[in-house]
Amino acid sequence: MKDAVKGIPGHKAGTVELEKLARLVRYFILTATTKAGSGHPTSSLSAADLLVGLMFTGLFRYTTENPKHPNNDRLIFSKGHASPLLYSLWTAAGKISVQELMTYRRFGSTLEGHPTATFRYAEAATGSLGQGLSIGSGMAMNAKYIDKLTYRTYVLLGDSEMAEGSQWEALQLAAHYRLNNLIGILDVNRLGQRGETMYGHDTGAYASRIASFGWETIVIDGHNFDEILPAYDKALESRDKPVMIIARTIKGKGVPFVEDKNGWHGKTLNKEQLEQALRDLGSVDTSLRGEIAEPENLYPEKKSSGSVGPLAYEDGKPVATRKAYGNALERIFPQFPDLVVLDAEVSNSTYSYEFKDAFPDRFFEMYIAEQNMVGSALGFACMGKIPFVSTFAAFFSRAFDQIRMTQYSESNVKFCGSHAGVSIGQDGPSQMGLEDLSMFRSVLNCVVLYPSDAVSAEKLVEEAARHKGMVYIRTTRENTPILYGEDEAFPIGKCKTLRQSVNDKVTVIGAGVTVFEALGAYEELAREGLYIRVVDLYSVKPIDIEALKWTIMGTRAVITVEDHHEEGGIGEAVRSALAGEPTPIYSLAVRKTPKSGKPEELLDYEEISKNAIIKKTREVL
Amino acid sequence: MKDAVKGIPGHKAGTVELEKLARLVRYFILTATTKAGSGHPTSSLSAADLLVGLMFTGLFRYTTENPKHPNNDRLIFSKGHASPLLYSLWTAAGKISVQELMTYRRFGSTLEGHPTATFRYAEAATGSLGQGLSIGSGMAMNAKYIDKLTYRTYVLLGDSEMAEGSQWEALQLAAHYRLNNLIGILDVNRLGQRGETMYGHDTGAYASRIASFGWETIVIDGHNFDEILPAYDKALESRDKPVMIIARTIKGKGVPFVEDKNGWHGKTLNKEQLEQALRDLGSVDTSLRGEIAEPENLYPEKKSSGSVGPLAYEDGKPVATRKAYGNALERIFPQFPDLVVLDAEVSNSTYSYEFKDAFPDRFFEMYIAEQNMVGSALGFACMGKIPFVSTFAAFFSRAFDQIRMTQYSESNVKFCGSHAGVSIGQDGPSQMGLEDLSMFRSVLNCVVLYPSDAVSAEKLVEEAARHKGMVYIRTTRENTPILYGEDEAFPIGKCKTLRQSVNDKVTVIGAGVTVFEALGAYEELAREGLYIRVVDLYSVKPIDIEALKWTIMGTRAVITVEDHHEEGGIGEAVRSALAGEPTPIYSLAVRKTPKSGKPEELLDYEEISKNAIIKKTREVL
Repeated sequence: MKDAVKGIPGHKAGTVELEKLARLVRYFILTATTKAGSGHPTSSLSAADLLVGLMFTGLFRYTTENPKHPNNDRLIFSKGHASPLLYSLWTAAGKISVQELMTYRRFGSTLEGHPTATFRYAEAATGSLGQGLSIGSGMAMNAKYIDKLTYRTYVLLGDSEMAEGSQWEALQLAAHYRLNNLIGILDVNRLGQRGETMYGHDTGAYASRIASFGWETIVIDGHNFDEILPAYDKALESRDKPVMIIARTIKGKGVPFVEDKNGWHGKTLNKEQLEQALRDLGSVDTSLRGEIAEPENLYPEKKSSGSVGPLAYEDGKPVATRKAYGNALERIFPQFPDLVVLDAEVSNSTYSYEFKDAFPDRFFEMYIAEQNMVGSALGFACMGKIPFVSTFAAFFSRAFDQIRMTQYSESNVKFCGSHAGVSIGQDGPSQMGLEDLSMFRSVLNCVVLYPSDAVSAEKLVEEAARHKGMVYIRTTRENTPILYGEDEAFPIGKCKTLRQSVNDKVTVIGAGVTVFEALGAYEELAREGLYIRVVDLYSVKPIDIEALKWTIMGTRAVITVEDHHEEGGIGEAVRSALAGEPTPIYSLAVRKTPKSGKPEELLDYEEISKNAIIKKTREVL
Repeated sequence: MKDAVKGIPGHKAGTVELEKLARLVRYFILTATTKAGSGHPTSSLSAADLLVGLMFTGLFRYTTENPKHPNNDRLIFSKGHASPLLYSLWTAAGKISVQELMTYRRFGSTLEGHPTATFRYAEAATGSLGQGLSIGSGMAMNAKYIDKLTYRTYVLLGDSEMAEGSQWEALQLAAHYRLNNLIGILDVNRLGQRGETMYGHDTGAYASRIASFGWETIVIDGHNFDEILPAYDKALESRDKPVMIIARTIKGKGVPFVEDKNGWHGKTLNKEQLEQALRDLGSVDTSLRGEIAEPENLYPEKKSSGSVGPLAYEDGKPVATRKAYGNALERIFPQFPDLVVLDAEVSNSTYSYEFKDAFPDRFFEMYIAEQNMVGSALGFACMGKIPFVSTFAAFFSRAFDQIRMTQYSESNVKFCGSHAGVSIGQDGPSQMGLEDLSMFRSVLNCVVLYPSDAVSAEKLVEEAARHKGMVYIRTTRENTPILYGEDEAFPIGKCKTLRQSVNDKVTVIGAGVTVFEALGAYEELAREGLYIRVVDLYSVKPIDIEALKWTIMGTRAVITVEDHHEEGGIGEAVRSALAGEPTPIYSLAVRKTPKSGKPEELLDYEEISKNAIIKKTREVL
């Protein structure tokens, strides 16, 4: 074994030291998991040599005092259950104490069962498999195309999780974007949770598949530093392809009585087994610590914010809110120079293409691969960008797991779902977002906005960009009239009362297209002297509890009306907000399987139209 | 061009007739879409020759009078937007009238914008891309492993949708299960919705990727019957591999002024353009009809139902509901011989392995690929099976789009999500199902069940098997005490009142683990003479509105408590059920980002524990 790693001038450790460090890391893995009484030691042991060979040889460059340094190399544990390895590596780097390591999985510890944003050296939360490569792709795209920095992104992958389609989405897009700064480390330890994977130790099966997707592949023995270090060397030489290091490994490596054995996934050693394992491991220098190289001290070019232009809806012509979304992205970019925009091959439907046309360098075509789009957006967000991702509202359901996981990365991703509800018309139910409000509402702290007209849509896009955290914006396919003046403000968490008088008998609460149905009902009922109050609930979450309580005062009933299934939607949001109020609440929502048809036919069929509101108003009085 | 297709004794048409039929089909596509004023003619035209060459040559075998014949070949339009082609083919087959064809996309027509179960010749609803191959895989698995029938399954795929990871999940599993009765037809027309696909007309890029996944690939010109028919011939010879016919095609083929042009996706011709197109198309024999061959008149072996054994929880020891799920599947199989069970590589956690061990022929390991698992389950369901699919509750979010689409196939799929809520403990938030109730509730007509103990879990699995339609069962990781006697019935749509007296001050409604927290609160409060009513809401949807109204009578407040986020969960379900009741409803739910920790620590932290119920009870009185 050579002591110097070719082409890596800053490397710190020779083989002997690497082996010592690997033993130390294994010692930490075993003691921490046994102490915790749960966790995944065997899945950690298989990748220990691969990661020690990366982190303590000068290959991995990271200002350990500043995890936020923009030119730090990134390391993502896509196989999040190998968290004991992650924590042990940082213990071996001297950056977390052994005492802290021993809090692994305890309530209040930042060393959780699977990495989350609470651990300062975790780039993103993982643990739902098959997501790390997408996150890493986003980070690598950021380095190559946006920040123009030299950091590299490493992703540790499990072999079991290669069955997830999201991996292949990430592989194809990373190749398409020629991410030679992205390096996957595939830990082929043969065993999944309940038995052997589809391909077992057949590293060639992975190599041929991954190579066919346009990656450079390097197959090695994952426990031999003489193969590991040259593999990294070679990976760093790639000029236009991402690189996958495919390593044959042994699950449980280093603990002979569990090595390559089924039935040891997610199991820790008991005290006696630990003693045996430590005897087998041999002498460990617990005072040893590895060194991590410094990155180049580069920063992205700082872009200053400019001011934004005015809205352009003076002519009062109806405009679809999806169109306003595109207009807004283009208009506000000077004010939010961290914006990046991603779309899943429907930019001409979501109107994100308007941004693309204006700022092609900040737009990424992610093709019809929504999971990877959302994962990559999270990668951008982790690097300080404000990603806006768009597709049909219905198709965000494809990425629900990635959306769900985004909340645990404390991330700043904005989602825009177009073609909401039955009002899209003829294309039929497969294209209709009817569960999207429920889906995004159910994610902790995710803001849910639903503009009715182009002005509010533009303002809400701006609010979304300003807000730190996840935001969902729901837009409509059809043109809707302009309701608001261009000076109107739309703070997150508020609502608008559009019609109000002392004579109002019923409060109708709508959002998006149903606001216009409510206004239509108002006109018709007013003609016969029956007045309804009309509320535009543009901020579905957070919902303006106080304003709603005030607003409904004096009316005998509340009717909610939404182009969405009743469960988890606007009706239930309003019921929760008005809990404890005596006014009865009735909910109009999509309750029958929709069909193809004209938007107005469908609104009537589902009983969420002007006519349905009129009928319900009469019924409840 | 040969007139006889090699190896296909029943073929009906020669080239000349095929070309006439293809012209007729194009004529139907163009006239129907122009009449409708929306739809996807160009995406239909590219695949017209491929499908005419399949349907009217004796290759495709189908009793047109009986779409439900179990040995019909199956044809799935994964590119559902090519529905005009599907409807035109069946018009050319004489099975739908031209008059009916002209109702395409009209309100009330069965010829919807994208195929749904309302169209009698649609095998499954499609339109959300990248799902058809999974559905087809399920059908092919059914033929090969369950029904032992000779039908073949054909799936028409678009090139754009190959970007979806779900496709690669389906490809790998179909190869793994050696589905030589599954034939994909990949329509490489180069153009997606907003421009060129990642690989354009590079059919080799598809061939190398698909071949690396273990498929036989055949690359052809998709407009040349001399290549199309031999390709099918060859496909039918495959002995142990699924086959992908990769066809280079022209989007808009047959209409020169739109052929291979961007900007024509999802656009119909106006009247003048249609006239021009029909002139270009040349003379069409509108009276021509194609013939479809009959299948072998085979039926699956009829299995008669037997009786089921008793439950086995007499000893009263705590048992996890997930364990009861596995027990139940095994126990009830004799009564429901149409059961098949699929799991995403966690059968030792969901306990579906108990069924696997007992009936290995009826169990399918689907590895960590939840989208394909759900799509395949739908395929099984379309063939009359009762598929039970299981994974962690959290990971069903991965397949939400497939779950969502299942409702439009009027399908009979049962989902079991284990490891619900923060009560799983140390593994941390990535593994916790906290949005699953909301997700499944928001799907139209999907039943949502949440057993608290092993007896109710077993009974509810039985109810799920008996119910026609989608059912979600939520199970718990930890052992819970046995609450119910083995004779207790658990009808869908009901609930159980566990503690009740005239002195009750508050009604506490829980489900799953929180039932035990509520019972604990009851004990403690009862000791000081404060009584609460306790309800086990095992059927979250449908919810027992009448019983709940009766049950809360006489109590001053309702407290719901759930191990789930508040939005779309039990609290909102109860609020909707009790709409109009004056009793105030308070909801305890998971409102803070969970951590790793002991289950009881987390229940306390999230304020959904016994202590939280006691505190809330005191607060509201």
